[in-house]
This record gives sequence, structure tokens and C-alpha cells, in this order.
Amino acid sequence: MHIEIINTGTELLLGNVQNTHGAWLGRELFRLGLRVARQITIPDGAVIESTLGESVRRSDVVIVTGGLGPTSDDITREATAAVLGCELIEDEAALRSLENFFAIRKKVMAPTNRKQAQAPVGADVLPNGNGTAPGIYVPPRLNPVRPCAIFLLPGPPRELYPMFHAEVEPRLRALAGVAADRGMLELKFTGVGESDFHQAIDDKLAAIEGMEYGYCARISEVDLRLIGSAAAVAQGRAVAVAAFGGYLISEDGNSLESVVIGMLRKAHLTLATAESCTGGLVASRLTDVPGASEVFTHGFVTYANRAKSEQLGVKESDLQQHGAVSEEVARQMAEGALRVTAVDVAVSVTGIAGPTGGTPEKPVGTAWLALARKGHDTVTEKVFHLRDRNGFKKAVSQSVLDLIRRHIATDT
Amino acid sequence: MHIEIINTGTELLLGNVQNTHGAWLGRELFRLGLRVARQITIPDGAVIESTLGESVRRSDVVIVTGGLGPTSDDITREATAAVLGCELIEDEAALRSLENFFAIRKKVMAPTNRKQAQAPVGADVLPNGNGTAPGIYVPPRLNPVRPCAIFLLPGPPRELYPMFHAEVEPRLRALAGVAADRGMLELKFTGVGESDFHQAIDDKLAAIEGMEYGYCARISEVDLRLIGSAAAVAQGRAVAVAAFGGYLISEDGNSLESVVIGMLRKAHLTLATAESCTGGLVASRLTDVPGASEVFTHGFVTYANRAKSEQLGVKESDLQQHGAVSEEVARQMAEGALRVTAVDVAVSVTGIAGPTGGTPEKPVGTAWLALARKGHDTVTEKVFHLRDRNGFKKAVSQSVLDLIRRHIATDT
Repeated sequence: MHIEIINTGTELLLGNVQNTHGAWLGRELFRLGLRVARQITIPDGAVIESTLGESVRRSDVVIVTGGLGPTSDDITREATAAVLGCELIEDEAALRSLENFFAIRKKVMAPTNRKQAQAPVGADVLPNGNGTAPGIYVPPRLNPVRPCAIFLLPGPPRELYPMFHAEVEPRLRALAGVAADRGMLELKFTGVGESDFHQAIDDKLAAIEGMEYGYCARISEVDLRLIGSAAAVAQGRAVAVAAFGGYLISEDGNSLESVVIGMLRKAHLTLATAESCTGGLVASRLTDVPGASEVFTHGFVTYANRAKSEQLGVKESDLQQHGAVSEEVARQMAEGALRVTAVDVAVSVTGIAGPTGGTPEKPVGTAWLALARKGHDTVTEKVFHLRDRNGFKKAVSQSVLDLIRRHIATDT
Repeated sequence: MHIEIINTGTELLLGNVQNTHGAWLGRELFRLGLRVARQITIPDGAVIESTLGESVRRSDVVIVTGGLGPTSDDITREATAAVLGCELIEDEAALRSLENFFAIRKKVMAPTNRKQAQAPVGADVLPNGNGTAPGIYVPPRLNPVRPCAIFLLPGPPRELYPMFHAEVEPRLRALAGVAADRGMLELKFTGVGESDFHQAIDDKLAAIEGMEYGYCARISEVDLRLIGSAAAVAQGRAVAVAAFGGYLISEDGNSLESVVIGMLRKAHLTLATAESCTGGLVASRLTDVPGASEVFTHGFVTYANRAKSEQLGVKESDLQQHGAVSEEVARQMAEGALRVTAVDVAVSVTGIAGPTGGTPEKPVGTAWLALARKGHDTVTEKVFHLRDRNGFKKAVSQSVLDLIRRHIATDT
């Protein structure tokens, strides 16, 4: 099935705004086992007509985003009617819903908005619960050029995404004959690389009938996506978990920080962080999660050596003897944070983010982590993540969060 | 001048990876006063030939990224030769540079790499200092289809970006007749909205001959871009600074955190942060800047009320009487951080990030900031940023950084 996406919007071509629709739609279609053959970005205005005409002649499905607004350069509706060689007529239900949208907000509807209720004769009008522009679906049989289905969707993500799920996905499933139980499972792993998966389980995954799979490698994270029937996906999951279950963060798209907060809440444990090289990023990621305040109470960013001594009681003699980036200092930071705050679990990290500060013995990228817990031995770990400064901070913060995850997973 | 961009890469269509090339190139071309008429993303493989053929028939310039690697689906070179109806020949300088790339890295060059030294007869080979794939420039006169210039560029950003600046930009300037002094100035503002600019200075900017301008609104930041001759841009800058100079962060693309670190370094001032609702984000943004350790020494993430009392000496009676989100608590946090750490400047922030925790008197989005400095009165400010949790953290961290910027700017 040949699918093309056309994104309209002058701002997308000026570099002001990232075009995130292309990737989002690509991912949603991949989830259904469908692929995008071509994605095209064009400015607002007249060029939509010729572009849509070309795409229709090549495609089974064309999805257009944008150009459904009330202004004069929003002409996706008109261009589609021209390609189909048909009239636009006012859809009564769409007009009522449009009037209702303004009435609820106690605003007067501008006359220019009225054209948003128009649709090609015979097309389906797709309701928009989050904006004024209804979507439009032209079924293949209405298309005199070629039996190509056309979806016209609004540009703003908060209108596009729900409309895709409610109106587009069921129609695409029917058009493409996607099995009802076909779905996607996304497994997130950390502490293991994409190449490890290739070596260990690619052959086994490829051998599973009726399942496709793909990887998405992020900084210190690999997402494995399994797409197919429920039974095939379950088989694929078993293969991945048998090989790399210890590195599995989540099966529901949840981030590592969200998983860690959830585990701490469940185990009724409070947490403090003591950061040097990550500079507060561990705390910031934890506090991105709603409800973090139930378990995360204290964070220290002891960036200067003096702060490590003053706030956490790290011995100055050890700072001098071993250096700030050392197992001993990481240990004392975690134990100091535990002692000072009286939380249940304290983690620490000290390392060399660069670009300067590296030595042959301790190159840029070196970091020591520690986890201290009441009544437990302190755990220390050395990690190495050679990246640019921001990539290093991200990768090391991931290691710190994963240290907490592994500790609670094995302990409780 | 009609310019099209073709990005090749199957991964860009699966939604694994954002296509950032489109926006990056759009922005760079805009800087030269040029516009992208169409951007097309296609998978690796055979479809490049027909796609390039169509684009060439419409365009004065086509820029292709990707497909220059050594593997069998990297066929951008071959497709271009087919569109031009010419042969590929091995470029001696390119082959030497390729052999050199491997020799330096003490690796053996695979036979498949050798095709990377090929180029259409008469084309310019564009050196790649950061990878194996040289770029290719086909001048309009070589093109039998239409006098359309073609640039073939490597996909990886760290190869693409420098090659664009060194090899593509000068050729585009010559092709498009871009005046030598034509350039772009980007002014970053915070604390003022895009609509304020529209109302106050749009008319004046539009009246400047030979200058184009555009806005890019981010969370709590507006970037104003001025493009044109040096004289016209200077005139535009004067208009913007006269109206909004107090909100100007930088004129060189520098981030607010980078500007703040630079100001602190210049004034020889050390800084501590005491954060509640931003959860470490202020510290993390500051430590994204290389050299932050010279001035930023201590950060506190006092997320729990107990942490505010224990670490910063906030009075428990005031926490109870005024609540954690109050002017009094913000003030005591900043003054406590100053006292405990003996730095020169301490800032604090306490607010309600949501989604829960709001009340009619203190709705979600409310935050109090404070700045304490040795020998100065403490400054407090109330801000309100109603957004989702992450947007709130980002916007409030921006207000905190800007409080430091304004304080140092007026004081020193």
C-alpha cells in the first residue's frame, strides 16, 4: 500500500518550527504495519493543488495536514475538490458544530469560518473536538483519478492526534485489511546497546511469523518495537525478555524517571540526590514526573569541592588524595546525603563532563556513582560515557536513575 | 529562485528519527534571503532517481541529503548521473582523501568505500573533513534537463553542517546573487511576548528597505531574525532595541544560561540556587554551559518542606502560616542559601507545577522567586506561567535566570 504524507505550512520551510507531523504519522502508521513512501512539505497556498494531484496519481492513501483554517491561504479543501473535479458543499452537521464551538466560548463566529464547514460532495466530515477545522475523508470510490483515499487533517497537534486515532486509524485498518488484533508493543531498555540486540536476538525475532520489529536508539536507551498479531508479539516479547530482561525499563512507554518514581512510591521509600557532574539533571528528570514530591525530598548540586564538604561532609583529605572524581568521594557524597537528610535511599554522582578537566588517568567521560541506603552496604559503580557535554549529562543521569531502579528491583 | 530539498533515509519515514535537516537547511537558506519551495523525504533506494528528476524539472537548485554512503542502498550518486545522462568517474583527489581517512584511523578501506570517490563528469567534489562521503556539486551548465544546480550532501549532521557552510553557501550566494554584506542577526528576548513585538514595532520593521524579518517564539523566549544588508539590519536592530532593549538576552545566538554564566564570570560573582518547583532545572541549565564551575558552586533542590527548613533554615512557622509557595518562603530560601554557602548571589524559586496542588488563591502556575545578595536588599518577584508541568518548569527556570541577568545588568 503506497502512502504519501503532505504537510502544508510556510513556517515548516523557514526553519522556525520543526515538522514533527511527519515523524509522528510515520510512527503511527508503522504501528499498523504500514509504511510511508514519501513525505512532502510545501508552503501554504496554491501549490497544494498540483502536489496533491501528483501524490494521488502515485498513491493508495494520501494524508494532508494543515490548510483547513479560515484564512485566505488555507485552501486544502478547495484544492482537493479541484483534484477530484467535484463541488464543495456545506455540511450541515459541520456548520452546527462550528457554531457550537463559538457559542460555548461566547465568541462570535467570523464569516470566514463558515467555509470550514464545506466538504467535497460525498466525503465524510471528521469531527474535531479540539478546534474549529473538521477533517475530511474522501473514500477511494469518489476519486475519479485513481482509487486513492484522501484524508485532510488539521495542523495543530492537539487537534491532529486525537482525530487520527478516532477517525483515521479505523478507516486505515479497514482500507489496508489490518488484522483486528494487530498491535504494537514498545519495550524500553537501558544499559545495553542496539548492537547487543542485533547479535543476540535479531535472528530469533526475524524468525517469528507475522511479526515485524524495529529499534529506536536514544541516548543510553534502546526501544524495541514489536508489531504484529497479539500472539506473535507475545512470542517476540518472550525472546527479548529472556535475553535482556534485566535491562528492561518499561513495556508501556513510561520513561525511566517515571518508573523509578513509581517503584519508590510502591516501596514507600524516600530519595535524596547528590550531584556533581550532572548538575541537577537527575533531580530535574525526577521532578518531571507528577507525584515526585511524595518520594523525592532533597537534592544537592555540589558542583564545587567546597560544596561537597560543606553540604555532604566529604572529607577534604579524600578530595585532595583521590580527587573529586573518585569512588571514595562518590561514596561519601551518597552516605553524606543519607545522613544529612534521613531519607531511605541516597544516590550520588561525580564525573568529568568536559570539554576540559580530563587527564590521562581520568579522561573526560569518566563518572563514579554511588547508592547508599539505611542498613545496606553502599554500592559504587564506575561508568564512562564519552559524548558532548549535554549528551554526557543525559547519559550519566540515565545511569544514576538505573542504579536506583536495579537496586529496588533486586532488593524488594 | 525555486529551491527544493530532498532528504533520503528510510528511518526518517518510520518515525524513529526526527528529520531535522529540513528545518536546519530552511533556516540557513532563510539567512541568505532564500526560501525552500518544497521539502521531500523518501526512503533509501531506487525512488531517488524519479524524485530527483521531478525536482530538477521544477527547480533552480536541488539539495539532496543522504545516500552517499558505501552500502548498496546508497545510490544518490548513481541516480544523479542517470538524471543528468552522464557517466560517473573516479575523482583522484577524492580517492586519495578517502584512503587517507582510513589510513589516519589505522583501518583498512573496504572495496565498497571506493565508489564514494566517484562523481558525475565535470562536477565538483566537495571535501568532507568529518566522514568518508565527499559531497558533489553539479553546476547548472552541466544539467541537460534544465539549468538547475544540484548539491549532494552527506546525511550525518556533523558532516552536513560544516560542508554546507564551507562549500554550499558560497556557491549559493553566487548563484542567487546574494549581496556580499547580506546577513542575519538573531536577537533573543525574554519576558516579552511575540504579540508585543507585533503591536509595537512590526510597522517600523516592515518599513525598512531591503530587510526581511521573522519571529520564532519558544517557551518564554522570542527570537527576532533580521535579514538583509548590514545597514538595513543595523536599522532594524535599533528599532527593536529602542522598544525592547531591557528584555534583550543576546545578539549572537547565546542562550540565557550562557549569558548569565558569562555575566557572573565577568563580574567575579559566585552563585547558589535554591529550587523547589523547578526541581533542579535551573542548576541543570546553568551547568549545561562549559565553564559553569567557575561561578556556580552550590545548588539545593528543597522539594519537601522539611528540606527547606533543614537545608536553608526556612522557619517552619512561616511555612505553616504563609505556605511553601509564598513571598516569605522564597525570600528565606534565597537568604538561607546565601548564608549557608557564602556565595555572592543566591536565587530561589517556589511554586505550583501541577497538575495537582493548586487552590483558588494560589492556582497551578503560581511561583515566587527571590534573589539575595551580600550587602543588598533581597528582591522578590511573583510570576505566573500556566502550562503543562514541563512547560511550567521551563518557563519558571527562564524567569529565575532572567532575574539574575537583570540584577547583574542593572547593578554592575
